[in-house]
Amino acid sequence: MKKLINSPDDVLTESLLGLAAAHPELRVDHANRIVYRGETKPHGTVALLSGGGSGHEPLHAGFVGFGMLDAAVCGEVFTSPAPDQLIEATRRIDNGAGVLHVIKNYTGDVMNFEMAAELLGGTEVDTVVIADDIAVEDSTFTAGRRGTGLTVFVEKIAGAAAEQGRELTEVAGLARRVCASGRSMGMALTSSTLPASGRPTFDLPDAEMEIGVGIHGEPGRRRVPLASAREIARMLVEPILADHEFGGSPAIVMLNGMGATPLIELYLMFGEVRGLLEKAGVSVARSLVGNYVTSLDMAGCSVTVLAADDEMLGLWDAPVSTPSLRWGI
Amino acid sequence: MKKLINSPDDVLTESLLGLAAAHPELRVDHANRIVYRGETKPHGTVALLSGGGSGHEPLHAGFVGFGMLDAAVCGEVFTSPAPDQLIEATRRIDNGAGVLHVIKNYTGDVMNFEMAAELLGGTEVDTVVIADDIAVEDSTFTAGRRGTGLTVFVEKIAGAAAEQGRELTEVAGLARRVCASGRSMGMALTSSTLPASGRPTFDLPDAEMEIGVGIHGEPGRRRVPLASAREIARMLVEPILADHEFGGSPAIVMLNGMGATPLIELYLMFGEVRGLLEKAGVSVARSLVGNYVTSLDMAGCSVTVLAADDEMLGLWDAPVSTPSLRWGI
Repeated sequence: MKKLINSPDDVLTESLLGLAAAHPELRVDHANRIVYRGETKPHGTVALLSGGGSGHEPLHAGFVGFGMLDAAVCGEVFTSPAPDQLIEATRRIDNGAGVLHVIKNYTGDVMNFEMAAELLGGTEVDTVVIADDIAVEDSTFTAGRRGTGLTVFVEKIAGAAAEQGRELTEVAGLARRVCASGRSMGMALTSSTLPASGRPTFDLPDAEMEIGVGIHGEPGRRRVPLASAREIARMLVEPILADHEFGGSPAIVMLNGMGATPLIELYLMFGEVRGLLEKAGVSVARSLVGNYVTSLDMAGCSVTVLAADDEMLGLWDAPVSTPSLRWGI
Repeated sequence: MKKLINSPDDVLTESLLGLAAAHPELRVDHANRIVYRGETKPHGTVALLSGGGSGHEPLHAGFVGFGMLDAAVCGEVFTSPAPDQLIEATRRIDNGAGVLHVIKNYTGDVMNFEMAAELLGGTEVDTVVIADDIAVEDSTFTAGRRGTGLTVFVEKIAGAAAEQGRELTEVAGLARRVCASGRSMGMALTSSTLPASGRPTFDLPDAEMEIGVGIHGEPGRRRVPLASAREIARMLVEPILADHEFGGSPAIVMLNGMGATPLIELYLMFGEVRGLLEKAGVSVARSLVGNYVTSLDMAGCSVTVLAADDEMLGLWDAPVSTPSLRWGI
């Protein structure tokens, strides 16, 4: 196994030490694996919490900061965080206006966030569950659709709304509208390798790729021979367009790298994806190209498309200052 | 070969199409492979040009924008841009106050930038050659030391100085001071694969790594058995500290990913590197962790350390707005 680690058991602990050192504007509760803002928001402002298994960096800790999350809770690699961690994090960031839990739809995540919300006394909690990955219904770790790339959009747009001082019901409602209007699909050229096992998560022959793969290497729709970027773009964009009516709205589009695919290829793929979208009458108003929701060292990419209204576009453009998304500030 | 491309011959052309689509604030001269700013600086301001072979993204095109480069010229993958491209780019960005050529020390780059400067009539050109990679003297494509990670620092600091309206001699002098005060060293866990050949650039057995590797896969100092992140950090930091006197100055440190190494590992490595530096009395004042100067899909990392004075720190902190480095704006 070729990884820059000391011991498989210490990867998360030691990565959080590095994150804390690199970002003095953030704080890390190392015992509970909570990354939170150094400066808290004014009293009476809604707070946003997300979290999940590690191995998808920069998601979620890389999105903690002004205009996005108040805290991220880190589970072990590909493992849900425990209810205790989520309770501690929720209490820590509660500013007296309630906390929105932003949850990717994986059974363990949903269960542990739910348990935390039930056990939390005195803090108002609302919840949004993201299930944007159209590849499959039900999957290895999921009932229903998996939550993937759209999480970045929910965290950005709902985070900006919270920063403006909107109430919890409004912020949560907006987050749910983003969920209803966005779709994703991904693909893998290679598997990822878990530090704990040292072996590829799944087997993918040299001449094949997985279309519709999950961010933990869960099976997708089909395994097909390697194809051109243009063909791959079509295999991702067509199902997305078939699943939702995007016509008319300006779109926010993310071309996301799975971890090991270089930026020169991601920009090339974005060009292909954008061409297909525009041809289908979907006008790309904003875009993100890079590694945002990864799967360790998997090579591949995913596409996320959000049919945005003016309110979402305005909140997307609002200032944000986090380790991995930063503009206007 | 597992890559998101259409044809090996079209990788750069099509990647630039995607870059242009993703960043409407930039302009791309596709015939000459020049990426430049949509909004030009005021007349009488020094302009910065860099460029080199592609495959190191986001370097250089990802650093075009306010506070950094005025333009980047893209050669084919791992191939120097031609003098004609450099001449065209220099003329395009000249605001009447001269142009600084920021060159990584590779024989082809230096030769073609020199030829361009000689052939350019009517534009004042000054030159800085970056040779920060302490791994080896002379290398596959280089006489002297190779230019690598410090390029980001030169582009950021000199770019901020140019934005303030300083004169060419001053901007160039500052760039040369950065070159004199910064050192880098890298390592590879795996080779990269060139789209044109479809095969690994060099052979690296499963149980070995290359310490001191170049960003084109050039040989380093030695090939050693795989080791822990802590050991690897020591193998990179100790030679850097032995090569330059860093004591006393605050340091700007970059932990750079070579392309295929996930962020969770890069943060872990940064924690190790920072620990060693602080133990040696080098105080880390600013840091960057991520993929900034890559080698296609190589797994590995590099460390860059700059002994910064107050002026450099101030210019580092100055606002910047480029696709891959953005703050304060």
